[in-house]
Amino acid sequence: MSRRNAFYAQSGGVTSVINASACGVIETARANRDRIGKVLAGRNGIIGALEEDLIDTSRESASAIRALMQTPSGAFGSCRHKLKSLEDNRAEYERLIEVFRAHNIGYFFYNGGGDSADTCLKVSQLSHTLGYPLQAIHVPKTIDNDLPLTDNCPGFGSVAKYVAISTREAAMDVASMCATSTKVFILEVMGRHAGWIAAAAGLAAEKEGDAPHIILFPEIAFDRKKFLARVQRCVKRHGYCVIVASEGTQYADGSFLSDSGTRDAFGHAQLGGLAPTLAAMVKDELGYKYHWAVADYLQRAARHIASQTDVDQAYAVGKAAVEFAIAGKNAVMPCIERGRGKRYTWRIGEAPLEKVANVEKMMPRSFITRDGFGITAPARDYLAPLILGEAYPEYRAGLPRYVQLKNLPVPRKLRKRFRVS
Amino acid sequence: MSRRNAFYAQSGGVTSVINASACGVIETARANRDRIGKVLAGRNGIIGALEEDLIDTSRESASAIRALMQTPSGAFGSCRHKLKSLEDNRAEYERLIEVFRAHNIGYFFYNGGGDSADTCLKVSQLSHTLGYPLQAIHVPKTIDNDLPLTDNCPGFGSVAKYVAISTREAAMDVASMCATSTKVFILEVMGRHAGWIAAAAGLAAEKEGDAPHIILFPEIAFDRKKFLARVQRCVKRHGYCVIVASEGTQYADGSFLSDSGTRDAFGHAQLGGLAPTLAAMVKDELGYKYHWAVADYLQRAARHIASQTDVDQAYAVGKAAVEFAIAGKNAVMPCIERGRGKRYTWRIGEAPLEKVANVEKMMPRSFITRDGFGITAPARDYLAPLILGEAYPEYRAGLPRYVQLKNLPVPRKLRKRFRVS
Repeated sequence: MSRRNAFYAQSGGVTSVINASACGVIETARANRDRIGKVLAGRNGIIGALEEDLIDTSRESASAIRALMQTPSGAFGSCRHKLKSLEDNRAEYERLIEVFRAHNIGYFFYNGGGDSADTCLKVSQLSHTLGYPLQAIHVPKTIDNDLPLTDNCPGFGSVAKYVAISTREAAMDVASMCATSTKVFILEVMGRHAGWIAAAAGLAAEKEGDAPHIILFPEIAFDRKKFLARVQRCVKRHGYCVIVASEGTQYADGSFLSDSGTRDAFGHAQLGGLAPTLAAMVKDELGYKYHWAVADYLQRAARHIASQTDVDQAYAVGKAAVEFAIAGKNAVMPCIERGRGKRYTWRIGEAPLEKVANVEKMMPRSFITRDGFGITAPARDYLAPLILGEAYPEYRAGLPRYVQLKNLPVPRKLRKRFRVS
Repeated sequence: MSRRNAFYAQSGGVTSVINASACGVIETARANRDRIGKVLAGRNGIIGALEEDLIDTSRESASAIRALMQTPSGAFGSCRHKLKSLEDNRAEYERLIEVFRAHNIGYFFYNGGGDSADTCLKVSQLSHTLGYPLQAIHVPKTIDNDLPLTDNCPGFGSVAKYVAISTREAAMDVASMCATSTKVFILEVMGRHAGWIAAAAGLAAEKEGDAPHIILFPEIAFDRKKFLARVQRCVKRHGYCVIVASEGTQYADGSFLSDSGTRDAFGHAQLGGLAPTLAAMVKDELGYKYHWAVADYLQRAARHIASQTDVDQAYAVGKAAVEFAIAGKNAVMPCIERGRGKRYTWRIGEAPLEKVANVEKMMPRSFITRDGFGITAPARDYLAPLILGEAYPEYRAGLPRYVQLKNLPVPRKLRKRFRVS
């Protein structure tokens, strides 16, 4: 078998550990030079393939590639571009094959979430449909933790850790101040459809009365009255109330609170943001002094406090993807399998892509307390191991030493240009 | 001299290292048992003194006190309560003396910012006015970095580090996504009157073009047109734009972009909501996809990534305060003096409280670039050493092991009750 090159691309929202998966792919390919040629990365994800804008990762030093282990964001650029079906956009698929053929690409490693798994599956099918031999392996990544078949998704554990730590820290701050000042603190976290991230904040609490006192999940219809009653009861009992809210918190009719177009306590139009909306409610109805924070990108970029477990798993799925490719597999995804023992163990398993694509893993209802405001013991058992270990990056002059790759382009071979609109 | 007890209280907004100062005070007092009796802490700050709600720190183990070094927030509770002048509220001062006399308190250690320095000065003057011997020492603390005479303020370095790291991390995230998605990211940070915290974000940039591309300071009148033109130029040049904005960003007429209309006990405006305001401007005028984050309490509670320099200095000012007291000083504040050499060094100095109280140290105009959107080399030289070193807390099960003291009350001695309204 001639040595064919590999294509690697990052897709969708990036995480603090997606580059650890890139490191796993590239280092493992380098360790198997007899089987795999160069790893060519798509600049800005799949768009790089379509536009023949490829990055030659072989021009990066071993130490630069190793430094990806401690570097957040997408080192080659990512994108939000979903390939339509072959019927709807044959031109894009044909272009992909044209580029792959020109650069002797035989392996397609796609590092992303649910949409990307779908794209990866479609690409794997090209092999048959367009008569071009290609093995497509999906490398799981999503802070949303919503991919099926895998116990958890690389990227999630580090956000979970960040959110749990930040909740604990901010809660202690509020507890110090509540006698005369702030009584309610609201932290808005990511999670549009599933409450996994908000749930992780629950790990901050160790005993009854600890913050967070209220978690708002997209899975539980928001009930303003019940929410405000709970806030009030909490402030009366504990002196303060810490709320962690999923950005996807919604009313029973499915409308997001953050899209509500309401006005704040002072008549100003709400400019978006669930946290200020909730804060205005608390202020209007209960009159408590509040503070709110919106973590936004900070939470998914916080490599400075990444979970070691997450970093290890992110690397492992990248490594396994290359090993699967070498073993001749196609249309699969390395997944994380949890051991059955009391002590947390995990190993890499294999999931067929057709069972991954377009399936969203929701949080089980049994992970949410009956009242809808907290997490249960099974949720805690599931979440706790994912935040284990502190994978500190190196520092220089007080700041993390994150790598910026050279990202040198592979010379174009095709005369035809292609622009992704 | 009979051994008199010490009173220690935390005041105003807490920080991630104020407890390191508490540790410095308590450990140093314990090491001088022949000179100082017990350290009695005010529960919820000065209110604890007024209401005779004192905490007996001698009931805490040495290891619990040591654990304060790595615990954010105010371990004894803080408050926002400013004592008026002696003429305006003689009752409160007389009550203080009554409580101090009942508990044989001869030393008053007040750990706070500018307003607290003023209170501390007033208390120091009681000694004369009300004929009660008392030494009052102010222990500097404020994330705002706005106390005069000290090179910097304990609490600031850690916020600076958090903000610089978060800016770098989030910027890398945006840079990965900007080809097809988010182009503008706005991080709102604290800083009502002085732009020290926002300035610290500038440390994230190492070379031309690095984020943050725009810093908004309270010191520079906000010019909507100029701001939007700069955002647009930045996106055109770099593909994305990262903005770090002080909550105190204001128009030329002094009105805050984010003023929510409420005032705290000190009469300060409660701010928040600047980031969404700026985001709406960007969206309306330029149409770029944006994300925004508001760090709020997360930034000042982030002990998980505190600056080692800051922790060391916070401890040192607490220690020095007790040493000053033993040396018979009154109405002083230990301050931080920077060495003159090229390599950063610091030592503890002494500042008279009457020169500290009610003086706000603004950022020199020379620290802000001529265009008003960035920091200069002198600012960088000043700020860089303050974020040096990573003072990681211990972890257990993936979360920082922060201490919760027992905070046992000192039995009341006075029959008269006093309620702070």
